[in-house]
Amino acid sequence: MTVSVAVVDAQTPGNVGTIARAMKNFGLTDLKLVDPPELDPDGEAYGFAGQAREDVLPEADVVTFEELAENYHTVATTAITNEDATKHVRYPFVTPQELADELQGVDSDVCLVFGREDVGLTNEELAEVDQICSIPASSDYPVLNLGQAATIVLYELRELTVEETQLPEITDRADQPAIEGLHDQFGSFLTAIDHPEEKRSKAGRLFRRVIGRAHPTGREVRTLRGLFRRVEQKLED
Amino acid sequence: MTVSVAVVDAQTPGNVGTIARAMKNFGLTDLKLVDPPELDPDGEAYGFAGQAREDVLPEADVVTFEELAENYHTVATTAITNEDATKHVRYPFVTPQELADELQGVDSDVCLVFGREDVGLTNEELAEVDQICSIPASSDYPVLNLGQAATIVLYELRELTVEETQLPEITDRADQPAIEGLHDQFGSFLTAIDHPEEKRSKAGRLFRRVIGRAHPTGREVRTLRGLFRRVEQKLED
Repeated sequence: MTVSVAVVDAQTPGNVGTIARAMKNFGLTDLKLVDPPELDPDGEAYGFAGQAREDVLPEADVVTFEELAENYHTVATTAITNEDATKHVRYPFVTPQELADELQGVDSDVCLVFGREDVGLTNEELAEVDQICSIPASSDYPVLNLGQAATIVLYELRELTVEETQLPEITDRADQPAIEGLHDQFGSFLTAIDHPEEKRSKAGRLFRRVIGRAHPTGREVRTLRGLFRRVEQKLED
Repeated sequence: MTVSVAVVDAQTPGNVGTIARAMKNFGLTDLKLVDPPELDPDGEAYGFAGQAREDVLPEADVVTFEELAENYHTVATTAITNEDATKHVRYPFVTPQELADELQGVDSDVCLVFGREDVGLTNEELAEVDQICSIPASSDYPVLNLGQAATIVLYELRELTVEETQLPEITDRADQPAIEGLHDQFGSFLTAIDHPEEKRSKAGRLFRRVIGRAHPTGREVRTLRGLFRRVEQKLED
């Protein structure tokens, strides 16, 4: 599967730059522009694009809407859906999350199509696309800015498009023996500070609950255990 | 639980406006600003805020970083984490999705803290916050624009903050008898157009698979069934 992004008749170059940046952030490179505004290399499009100014933006293709509809499985995003199936230009729709699930394993060339800042895509354009996507937002104000809407859709599709994220795997959660060792040390600490004997098991359970929710790393467990041990040593001095 | 948003030492008013808009889109109102730039009502902050120019932005509080740290469960977002537990200013971290899961059911005042456009939050500031959040993005270019990063985090927390979305529930998926009726009609249609008898059951299975993946609405099923019926009627004329 390939995922392209198309921006139709954007009015402000800044939004094109914002979308280009989100594309690069989430592993995409192929930007299609229908009736774009002028993208001055010294202007807002390039100013907002971050490192996408080096590739996504200068390599964008200018195409027609018809070319998109003919060559891609097109998915348009709109804030305003139809209420039910009596009108079907904007219905049924999927959320970005559902879209990501549906596209998983589908082998096709997908193009995510975003419309104008003020009026989005026209009903005529929406009628030509294959799927409608809508971002769940507050009923009081569901209309997202163009660049922000595109960012969310690209973020949701990241598992299809990002080969490797910047995040290290958290592989060093403490193992259970290390955590039990901390609890043993805590018990010994309670004794060392003369915490009333009848209250010790309750304090131990409380500490067990706190640690149980925190899923500490090995290092965190070792550090805490060392601190409790140090108390005992100080008291023995 | 309440969720507030803080922006620390933002350099560009436009990003503050973008964040205010995302807040309103996802049901939040309480914006805290630490060392904000001047927010001119005729400038970019208000220009980028959409309808949040009416409430979120003019009602924002200017506070100190210390006030945030003292009064909230603070969650800072950073693109760059530490690699492992040998340094713990930016480690362990949660993704926005994990954050949403963790905060579910937690009764506390949460403040999402976002830093400067260029350098984010300092290590000193990060050391003061309670949790670190990081958005998984492409290892080639994981640094999101400030406004886009905030938009994604607020989007992910929507189930905690948006009371009602704009999206209608899709309640009118066709029921199974209606779908079976469509398949009966399709069988009858194959007969009417004299599709070779030995190929009919294969064509029927193919059509069943297509419809099975599409989860059509009642209206879609009725319309398709009507079209196939119409073919038969035309052929009978």
